[in-house]
Amino acid sequence: MTASHHRRTFKMNLYVPYAHIDKMGFVYYANYLVYFEMARADMMRQVGTPYGELEKKGVMLPVIEAHCVYKKPAHYDDHLEVNTVVTDIKGVRIRMEYVIKRGDDTLVTGYTEHVCLSPEGKVLKPVPEIRQLTEG
Amino acid sequence: MTASHHRRTFKMNLYVPYAHIDKMGFVYYANYLVYFEMARADMMRQVGTPYGELEKKGVMLPVIEAHCVYKKPAHYDDHLEVNTVVTDIKGVRIRMEYVIKRGDDTLVTGYTEHVCLSPEGKVLKPVPEIRQLTEG
Amino acid sequence: MTASHHRRTFKMNLYVPYAHIDKMGFVYYANYLVYFEMARADMMRQVGTPYGELEKKGVMLPVIEAHCVYKKPAHYDDHLEVNTVVTDIKGVRIRMEYVIKRGDDTLVTGYTEHVCLSPEGKVLKPVPEIRQLTEG
Amino acid sequence: MTASHHRRTFKMNLYVPYAHIDKMGFVYYANYLVYFEMARADMMRQVGTPYGELEKKGVMLPVIEAHCVYKKPAHYDDHLEVNTVVTDIKGVRIRMEYVIKRGDDTLVTGYTEHVCLSPEGKVLKPVPEIRQLTEG
Repeated sequence: MTASHHRRTFKMNLYVPYAHIDKMGFVYYANYLVYFEMARADMMRQVGTPYGELEKKGVMLPVIEAHCVYKKPAHYDDHLEVNTVVTDIKGVRIRMEYVIKRGDDTLVTGYTEHVCLSPEGKVLKPVPEIRQLTEG
Repeated sequence: MTASHHRRTFKMNLYVPYAHIDKMGFVYYANYLVYFEMARADMMRQVGTPYGELEKKGVMLPVIEAHCVYKKPAHYDDHLEVNTVVTDIKGVRIRMEYVIKRGDDTLVTGYTEHVCLSPEGKVLKPVPEIRQLTEG
Repeated sequence: MTASHHRRTFKMNLYVPYAHIDKMGFVYYANYLVYFEMARADMMRQVGTPYGELEKKGVMLPVIEAHCVYKKPAHYDDHLEVNTVVTDIKGVRIRMEYVIKRGDDTLVTGYTEHVCLSPEGKVLKPVPEIRQLTEG
Repeated sequence: MTASHHRRTFKMNLYVPYAHIDKMGFVYYANYLVYFEMARADMMRQVGTPYGELEKKGVMLPVIEAHCVYKKPAHYDDHLEVNTVVTDIKGVRIRMEYVIKRGDDTLVTGYTEHVCLSPEGKVLKPVPEIRQLTEG
């Protein structure tokens, strides 16, 4: 049994606003990165460490890499579920993976990679508030 | 007693995403118009006529005027309440008013004015699905 | 002859990106506030005081009120001209007016009102860099 | 000598608007996807086939995959150059690569992959207007 069995999946739901729909009637592709970020924030509230508090302690979590695969389009007012898992911490890099679903349909998958950064821009070792996210 | 006593206030809550914060640490001013739109959509779901269904019936509800007064800034991850009231239907113009609060603090007030439009761009009389919103 | 004859109109051009188009095929209404802001920034570069420099000197220029009238829709890849005039400084309030055109057609008009703010959130008298904008 | 020597690099410039800056003072990560899209549109105008015309002919170009690597942050009012190259057409997949620079500094690199799609959602072979982009 691998460690990945213990990873916790965090769920966040949202309705697609009109603001996010493009001319084809689909969610504009950049907005899924916003949904990923909203899901990260929601995850951190769920574990009792809102990201804003982390920043107040002097730990920022900038994205250093992002990836999206668009399988099926989401439409206006669709009720989406964003599933987030912190899959890996390798050295200073933290990897989060996302699956966006509408009912049983997987619409978008993706990942982001982050580092912990001090306000002065120094890369920090992942803090305990982040490391706990990889535990079940 | 005036008609306004019977107006129903619709409430929607949201957490402010990082995407919406500007350099000053405040919600960027255009995003409140997005919150107004999300609140309109939520209102229409609450009364059982999602806006998407209205569009499928051939009724669009474009904004012809918008106004915002910024009293106090909202910050990252603030939990906001958007209060929406359809205050008036004068001829073809429909007016909606908004109050955005964080707890007891009023942060932003504003309004939008709309018309009902056919897909061919013809202005329609406000449809019953909209007129019901002004009833208590 | 009134003072308004001496007001300078600043022009900025842009192509409408796909990101800004909604399901109806029109520019989503909140994006015009972004165009207003881009036009303000362009105006300040034109007069040799980029807004970023103003912030470095400790002067922020938050919006305290915004208004938009939507006359005709803009579409994807339309080439727009945003005309900006600083029309008034009354006490601490600075008013800027905007006209967005596509060729000879006026699509959107609006205004924003601002105050000068210190980093500590204190309202300042409008600084000379702003006052000069009302001169021809 | 490989085919890649013949690829044309298309350049587009932009000033970073305040709307795109986040709390850290950096361009919010999703906005680079908007810059990629603006650069694609600019490229197509440069070769005389604005994307809007392609859509009118019944060819859409949705993104099926997107990737971004964030090396250094961009700030408010930075003057950025987005370099775009259509690097590959493999079967129905079209790949575009991007390098965003501020002066000599590379800030962000990335790619998008696209297919040509009919209005009915049928995947088409890449049309000549797209294929020409891979030629020098």
